[in-house]
Amino acid sequence: MDRKKDLLKIAVAAREASRQLARTDTNRKNRALQKMAEGLEKESRKILAANRKDLGQAAAHGLSGAMLDRLKLNEKRIAEMASGLRAVAALPDPVGEIPEVWSRPNGLRVGRMRIPLGVICIIYEARPNVTSDAAGLTLKSGNAAILRGGSEAINSNLAIARVLQAALAGAGLPPAAVSIIPWTERELIGELLKLEELIDLVIPRGGEGLIRYVVERSRIPVIKHYKGVCHIYVAASADFDLAEKVILNAKVQRPGVCNAIETLLVDRKAAAAFLPRIAKKLKEARVELRGCPETRKHIPRIKKATEADWYAEYLDLILAVRVVDGLDPAVRHIEKYGSAHTEAIITRDYDEARRFVREVQSSLVLVNASTRFNDGGELGLGAEIGISTTRLHAFGPMGLRELTTQKFFALGEGQIRE
Amino acid sequence: MDRKKDLLKIAVAAREASRQLARTDTNRKNRALQKMAEGLEKESRKILAANRKDLGQAAAHGLSGAMLDRLKLNEKRIAEMASGLRAVAALPDPVGEIPEVWSRPNGLRVGRMRIPLGVICIIYEARPNVTSDAAGLTLKSGNAAILRGGSEAINSNLAIARVLQAALAGAGLPPAAVSIIPWTERELIGELLKLEELIDLVIPRGGEGLIRYVVERSRIPVIKHYKGVCHIYVAASADFDLAEKVILNAKVQRPGVCNAIETLLVDRKAAAAFLPRIAKKLKEARVELRGCPETRKHIPRIKKATEADWYAEYLDLILAVRVVDGLDPAVRHIEKYGSAHTEAIITRDYDEARRFVREVQSSLVLVNASTRFNDGGELGLGAEIGISTTRLHAFGPMGLRELTTQKFFALGEGQIRE
Repeated sequence: MDRKKDLLKIAVAAREASRQLARTDTNRKNRALQKMAEGLEKESRKILAANRKDLGQAAAHGLSGAMLDRLKLNEKRIAEMASGLRAVAALPDPVGEIPEVWSRPNGLRVGRMRIPLGVICIIYEARPNVTSDAAGLTLKSGNAAILRGGSEAINSNLAIARVLQAALAGAGLPPAAVSIIPWTERELIGELLKLEELIDLVIPRGGEGLIRYVVERSRIPVIKHYKGVCHIYVAASADFDLAEKVILNAKVQRPGVCNAIETLLVDRKAAAAFLPRIAKKLKEARVELRGCPETRKHIPRIKKATEADWYAEYLDLILAVRVVDGLDPAVRHIEKYGSAHTEAIITRDYDEARRFVREVQSSLVLVNASTRFNDGGELGLGAEIGISTTRLHAFGPMGLRELTTQKFFALGEGQIRE
Repeated sequence: MDRKKDLLKIAVAAREASRQLARTDTNRKNRALQKMAEGLEKESRKILAANRKDLGQAAAHGLSGAMLDRLKLNEKRIAEMASGLRAVAALPDPVGEIPEVWSRPNGLRVGRMRIPLGVICIIYEARPNVTSDAAGLTLKSGNAAILRGGSEAINSNLAIARVLQAALAGAGLPPAAVSIIPWTERELIGELLKLEELIDLVIPRGGEGLIRYVVERSRIPVIKHYKGVCHIYVAASADFDLAEKVILNAKVQRPGVCNAIETLLVDRKAAAAFLPRIAKKLKEARVELRGCPETRKHIPRIKKATEADWYAEYLDLILAVRVVDGLDPAVRHIEKYGSAHTEAIITRDYDEARRFVREVQSSLVLVNASTRFNDGGELGLGAEIGISTTRLHAFGPMGLRELTTQKFFALGEGQIRE
């Protein structure tokens, strides 16, 4: 297969570009980001024309309305891509940061310095805006990107990448810093995933099928996020008004996202007082409830929750509800059925709050706040390339800093090892 | 295969144990480490008897002297294992550390907290002391270990693990916190490496063959270290006495280790003055030199270095020498031929030192000091489980902190997302 050779060429060029980017100062990277934003705005007509081609083919292939909506670009979405790049330009540059320096007994001064990861491969599906968002974050963090978008969006992705590459060249940076794979055969993903000497990290963004496909084949480290089965636990001491407000927000504000809750756990001591009132509010918001036997005593006429419900990521207006016997069973339920994504406790008890934060090993653990805050922007990271539920390297939302690593350095005056 | 089921049972038990360990306080972990150390000393006779069995079988299989030496235990080595465990007990516990807390405009206080990784699988070869060293570091960092040692050392490893597990039970901790695979079929490694839902990290320790075997099969993140092709670059402004001292240390003090240098790069401006004198010292230390054409003008009668020499990890008293045209070509040589392990510059020039530290992307970059310092103990990490040349998660020596990850937490008073 000749494509294999071409793929290798792309990866080698990205590796070369990554070396130059690692030494590029912040000003030049920001200039490139500004030029990329301008380019998208100036060339929006070309990008929209390419997008119309994708939309036409997608409609002919019978893609669903939700898929078509993800695929579709318009002036507003292009403007959002551009402002996203400008926002990244405004963020502090993590590269070169020295988080700590210490001295050794022999006088050697040792420290850690943040450096880019190198080459990051992003494998994604139908959203063409990922092409620009991912390119911005990888560039600012000093990494080269290899982008492999879905076949549905190939014309849009190529048009966007062309604009970004021209902007890079205009800022004196190698266009290969944002490399795009122009072919869409799935087997080529397998070939990419073997290039462990050239690519440092793979981030698959898409459905569970794509992610499992990548994990099973990759020799390169993968940071992934399968799903979000998030919980709120209402303790006996909870402020019920606060609990109601937070639960409604976490379930209803945007039910189709990974940080919406799927299961509500309620302490037995609070069940009789709290369950009927939260049930009323949730029904008003058209949420279907599925309960354990004890829940159904307090909320009659709701469906029985099965074992499968505790594992379910509904991504819909459905909520499983279970009565538990205090904090420990709540934590055990989360350990068994959860996805280590986001969990919250509603409580007024100091010790319960402290224990929940300490003992629940999810990427974000909250006290008296909505699970919907698990997002790079909301937590103050500035922007995010995704949320990791892999514990290695980065756990939770990944901002610029999570796209870097740290090397050691040591400053001496002739020290040798005895 | 029934073994597959048994393997799964071991991994499930380790996962359960890891949950308990994650909530265990520092005092109890330290008590367990002390009991493990005492146990090794008390039961040294049993361990040595098991080790003699391994040695007998190894000799019958015709293992090399070096392999037999790695395999062999004696009272002194057991005492070292025990004191290693006590040293780990004395180190600060990284779990629960809160490196940062910040506030959001809505009043939410967000922070990061260190937590254990979970279950760490260590796959190693002939050294039975790894069983105890790895168990100590994983326990202190709140992780459960699954240990899979080489077949040569199976009796020693099982005897050591039995002692460690009894000590864990004595300290009220689950023996599965230090799990050992009692079977040595290589196919079982492949099965282990599929258990991505139960194991969080794999660390292979051994030859390049073992490491590649693991990387090619693992669905679990792997932290690895293929080899160390380390460099020293002597700049024109170098203090030649200091350069001599550091180069000799880096090449000769222990040539068989990964942080010894394999290639010496010398600035053309320093070549005529420096090469003859360093050649004399290295020859006195019985180091064979292999030079580029220009090197051979200054050091006659040495072998010609081939392209393969620049890539070589000799692990022996051999050194490749190349004259380069200043800092940029030196950095490019290191990028092309190096293994991102350890590199040093010898210079008196501030700007060169600054640029070398910033531009060389190796796990440790030194100025005016020996590459032999790339070691967790020497750099002040207290102890190490290995040196990573993977850029993800940890780059360089891995101490206790590198066996943890960080989760986010957020403390609110009813915040919801608008």
